[in-house]
Amino acid sequence: MIAHGEAAPAELLAVGSELTAGLRQDTNTLWLCGELRALHLRVARVTSLPDRIGVIAAEIGAACSRSALLIVTGGLGPTTDDRTLEGLAQGLGVRRRVHPEARAWLQEALPGKRRELSEALLRQVRLPVGARPLRNRRGTAPGLLLESGKSLLVALPGVPDEMRGLWQDEVFPELATRFPVAGKTRRRVVVGGLRESEVDGMAAPVCLRRGVDCTILAGGGVVELHLEGHGEAVISALHELRILLAHDLISCDGSSLEETVLAAARSRGGHLAVAESCTGGRVAARLTAVPGASDVFLGSLVVYSDDLKRGLLDVPDMVLRRHGAASQEAARAMVEGLRRRTGCRWGVAVTGIAGPQGSGRGKPVGSVWFAAAGPAGVVSRRRRFPGGRHRVQDEAAGMALDLLRRTVLSGGSEA
Amino acid sequence: MIAHGEAAPAELLAVGSELTAGLRQDTNTLWLCGELRALHLRVARVTSLPDRIGVIAAEIGAACSRSALLIVTGGLGPTTDDRTLEGLAQGLGVRRRVHPEARAWLQEALPGKRRELSEALLRQVRLPVGARPLRNRRGTAPGLLLESGKSLLVALPGVPDEMRGLWQDEVFPELATRFPVAGKTRRRVVVGGLRESEVDGMAAPVCLRRGVDCTILAGGGVVELHLEGHGEAVISALHELRILLAHDLISCDGSSLEETVLAAARSRGGHLAVAESCTGGRVAARLTAVPGASDVFLGSLVVYSDDLKRGLLDVPDMVLRRHGAASQEAARAMVEGLRRRTGCRWGVAVTGIAGPQGSGRGKPVGSVWFAAAGPAGVVSRRRRFPGGRHRVQDEAAGMALDLLRRTVLSGGSEA
Repeated sequence: MIAHGEAAPAELLAVGSELTAGLRQDTNTLWLCGELRALHLRVARVTSLPDRIGVIAAEIGAACSRSALLIVTGGLGPTTDDRTLEGLAQGLGVRRRVHPEARAWLQEALPGKRRELSEALLRQVRLPVGARPLRNRRGTAPGLLLESGKSLLVALPGVPDEMRGLWQDEVFPELATRFPVAGKTRRRVVVGGLRESEVDGMAAPVCLRRGVDCTILAGGGVVELHLEGHGEAVISALHELRILLAHDLISCDGSSLEETVLAAARSRGGHLAVAESCTGGRVAARLTAVPGASDVFLGSLVVYSDDLKRGLLDVPDMVLRRHGAASQEAARAMVEGLRRRTGCRWGVAVTGIAGPQGSGRGKPVGSVWFAAAGPAGVVSRRRRFPGGRHRVQDEAAGMALDLLRRTVLSGGSEA
Repeated sequence: MIAHGEAAPAELLAVGSELTAGLRQDTNTLWLCGELRALHLRVARVTSLPDRIGVIAAEIGAACSRSALLIVTGGLGPTTDDRTLEGLAQGLGVRRRVHPEARAWLQEALPGKRRELSEALLRQVRLPVGARPLRNRRGTAPGLLLESGKSLLVALPGVPDEMRGLWQDEVFPELATRFPVAGKTRRRVVVGGLRESEVDGMAAPVCLRRGVDCTILAGGGVVELHLEGHGEAVISALHELRILLAHDLISCDGSSLEETVLAAARSRGGHLAVAESCTGGRVAARLTAVPGASDVFLGSLVVYSDDLKRGLLDVPDMVLRRHGAASQEAARAMVEGLRRRTGCRWGVAVTGIAGPQGSGRGKPVGSVWFAAAGPAGVVSRRRRFPGGRHRVQDEAAGMALDLLRRTVLSGGSEA
């Protein structure tokens, strides 16, 4: 839950038919939302529209009457489907004119000393009257800044690299001056081993009591809480949550589950390894996404077939025949073989039924078995995850990492 | 450029403060835009709003007066920040009531035979009057379908897996009946081993000549072409592209690179295995994302440390000392060890420098070595990928899969 303070409302508008046709994920607005949050500007609406002048114009008119800030991305380039400038001019009821400064930038950017600018190139610098151009050092299309009534309008090119560059060089400094930030704090809390509803039931009253805004997100085997509010209130909520969550608290300093596992092993001077069946390499992929993982992570044996479980991890044939590869016994044998074969101090094994096939004998799709081992012995768990194959694989990978974390932290004994 | 026909207009609305706060990428609407495209429904607008009843209600009212179809995602769950049902009821000016059928589904889904439904759980089935609930087999929150004036309104949970399941089971069939499709064809072509600009240079003239719309997208080590146009024109463009692309064509039947590799091995009756260093499990994760991969995929040895390269793959210590773990010689030794240790018919090994650390001695960050082996011998490659750690890891995983594909198709000889 995010409560909305009195921060100035902002809107984002992403222009491009590739977005509404489902061909390209718009990542610009997500990034901009994060940037605006850092400025404590509340995003009231994010809209994507196709490259049609009429709808762009109507939306710009409406947005300027609703919000203090409108940021438009995309449609500023030289091709015929770049229509944002026309939409802007029409929406604000102003003309367009070639902006001499922007034209000079364009000419400088051209290779050689070509004097003639093509009509296509000139389209990019035919700006709505009253606009201040923003120099794009990574491409040809300038951005622009424009006051309209009580609103500030910013337009940026859609190429992510150009958009971010212009934002950082030109727009962020301007906004930081116009909208000075209040004394608020923001913290991310990562929780393992609990369901989203359980975490919500714990956190909601703690935050409500202190007037702290709390957003809850689940995925990849963990639950995240994003707290926001006045400094002392957030710190005091964190303090209470730390006690309530105990060992289920993975981090509250912004670290991810993977980073936490690697850091715990590093500070204890031991190495980690993984044996994966149903997660098929996802545990290893998450650990190796962290730069510098190689100093504590040895590797993962992705033993998808029974032959490899026997051959690489010495899982006894009898275990596979009597209990099946998806079983507690197999998970324990896998982690024991893993420690022997790799010499890791801590290891985790995961095996189960990701689906859609493979269920049977009281083992429905989504059933996953885990075993973690360290100097103090082996612990094991069984969980059943809802959802399809990919969700089961992702959640199981997170659960394996969390069990590994608990094992490292406890020195290897029962977590 | 995408032309807009006279198809019925649709709108999407994603609800969730995590979206407008920049905490979570909304992937649902992208996916839905693609699905609506398959139905030839034109998406006129995509909006994201925070969890605020007033703005949700206002937007739903406005959307229903503009568009023939409105699809809302998110905010249907049991927690206090799930407010879509209230927004819907307020926006349409109707009351909410516990829907007996949806309530019965909820009760069935509960573990054991718990009779008492908590107020939090009941919130999910207190639906706007007139709504038809859609059974969610992957979670507790039902979807719903509701007629309002000339508009059809569909609400789906925000968890991607649940959203897609409900869409495929319930919504898509319903829409396919209501909005029958015109005579256009759409095909996806997947290409490996070439840069985006190279593929564009080949495909653009072919498509232009035939009036076929072509959108090009790159990522994960492959380039995708999306062709759309009249049936015969698309088929004839495909025919020409097949000749131009030759072995670089991965598929033009909608199959992914991973599916193509697995199917090729399956039809030849052999098994696959992988040895990964810098990709850290990503090759295995991509193969195991495909249901039924286990019949041909044995597993992957993620040998992140030199000790495991020696111990599990018999990479000679001299190779590691003389050439380093990131080298052509190491890649070849890895794939040879892989074949011996797993008994696979075809295998691929990948090792390199994902960064940000680890460069040196003429080996900049992004340098990756590959070796693939089959009955006819070993082939090897070196590539340098641009971008940061994650991009290098993803592109290298795709390249490894493509090299494996070429090896399987050629029977194991030089691809």
